[in-house]
Amino acid sequence: MLINRQCNILIVGLGLIGGSYAKGLRKLGFNVSALARRQETIDYALKNAIIDEGSVSPDPDLIGKADIVVFALYPHVFKEWIGDNQRYLKKGAILTDVTGVKSCIVYDIQDMLRKDVEFIAAHPMAGKEVYGVENSDEKIFYGANYIIVPTDKNTENAIEICREIALLLQFGAISILSPEEHDEMIGFVSQLTHCIAVTLMNCSDNEKLVDYVGDSFRDLTRIARINENMWSELFLLNKDSLLKEMDRFMEEFKSLRDELAAEDTEGMKEKMRTSTARRALFNKK
Amino acid sequence: MLINRQCNILIVGLGLIGGSYAKGLRKLGFNVSALARRQETIDYALKNAIIDEGSVSPDPDLIGKADIVVFALYPHVFKEWIGDNQRYLKKGAILTDVTGVKSCIVYDIQDMLRKDVEFIAAHPMAGKEVYGVENSDEKIFYGANYIIVPTDKNTENAIEICREIALLLQFGAISILSPEEHDEMIGFVSQLTHCIAVTLMNCSDNEKLVDYVGDSFRDLTRIARINENMWSELFLLNKDSLLKEMDRFMEEFKSLRDELAAEDTEGMKEKMRTSTARRALFNKK
Repeated sequence: MLINRQCNILIVGLGLIGGSYAKGLRKLGFNVSALARRQETIDYALKNAIIDEGSVSPDPDLIGKADIVVFALYPHVFKEWIGDNQRYLKKGAILTDVTGVKSCIVYDIQDMLRKDVEFIAAHPMAGKEVYGVENSDEKIFYGANYIIVPTDKNTENAIEICREIALLLQFGAISILSPEEHDEMIGFVSQLTHCIAVTLMNCSDNEKLVDYVGDSFRDLTRIARINENMWSELFLLNKDSLLKEMDRFMEEFKSLRDELAAEDTEGMKEKMRTSTARRALFNKK
Repeated sequence: MLINRQCNILIVGLGLIGGSYAKGLRKLGFNVSALARRQETIDYALKNAIIDEGSVSPDPDLIGKADIVVFALYPHVFKEWIGDNQRYLKKGAILTDVTGVKSCIVYDIQDMLRKDVEFIAAHPMAGKEVYGVENSDEKIFYGANYIIVPTDKNTENAIEICREIALLLQFGAISILSPEEHDEMIGFVSQLTHCIAVTLMNCSDNEKLVDYVGDSFRDLTRIARINENMWSELFLLNKDSLLKEMDRFMEEFKSLRDELAAEDTEGMKEKMRTSTARRALFNKK
């Protein structure tokens, strides 16, 4: 292991995901500190032994002693933070993140970053439809997918540290994708699905729906409870990929619709056989 | 209660849902018999104490002693069965069903049925993405929604018996809808969601998807494992309602897509706020 228990880990942004990183890593024996916007967040995290130290200001001491810094911020805030505070970073520090879009931030941050520290992007594919450090839970990572998103500028060393963090937090599959591959894939598996869930709930104002639905509708709309500020930002930052996925989905959906209109039973069944076979490949163990 | 433990209950069609009715009712002390297509199904159900008696032929004795008959068959098979076997039914028997579409069968069956028995349609909003009596489980009904679908021909007595079955099986909300209301609603909450799940899986042939997805994609595609014979039949039998729901969904989805293309952040956020507020109304207790 490149990481050892003497490493100081700083979490910047102590929401659901940042808080879950903090909980998981602190329980493993690391010294975990955090920066957050609100004093209540820090107070809660200290009181509940989620972190060892914390501050609402960019405390040069906290930043300066961190060997690993995990950014769990909105994309635009992340860039601002680097611009304002990178001067405090320890020489040799490894920076990573949990941001849901990559191309639009990874290259910019690597370009602006001091040459004696390294940023390696990552995306833990885990979440909940609730927010804040109060809801953080390191168990959301158990068995979940973890994607490391290196560029040509990254070292094998940094990729390995990222992998170790994922292993320590008990993620399942660990994959490596380029920023472009990541954004295309995330446009499909994450952003498109959120668009669908939001749309479904916008289709009906029937307040009695709750008494009629089965698990299928519940499942398809769980993520319709959505943080509109974060997700509208993520959608815009990945606009081209997401639009492509939305158009592809509409085309495929239209094809099923037209088969139904034409009573093309065999066409519909063929799509159902395909979906059944593909979905069977990834049932959670 | 109108139903008592001396009632003989016959399940016609011993798949996942029929088997789950049988399990739940037999555990409550009812005498439960079943008709199924395959001898292995009957053997399995007898061996596992899911039923008291069973047959692969339309045994006049079994049919003739049933006070309540629950049909868990494909829609077209249901009508055939009534035509062929209603002469064996006990005078005063109450017939009910679990069929996923109503307008296209309820009126026909009530028209063709003997006047000394009564058919009251019902739809338990529960299921699983696996099939067969081997997977049956009465717990899938606990807290699930149950919809009773009477017509003008139904008596209060039959509606009450249906309600009692739902209560005995521990369903949650019990609602009453007309066949037309039911089909419109089911086109939206059940059939449309299955169309979406099937479409999502048809959008990508990436076999590594399993290593990238988060819970959102898993949730939205769980029902993409689908029985193509049953669901293509259900879609066709509810074609007009489902097409209307598919078109409404596409229109709403297109609206979100166009807001993204135009970078209309406020428009997107408004949809997200709506979806969040509406979905919050029906979180499972």
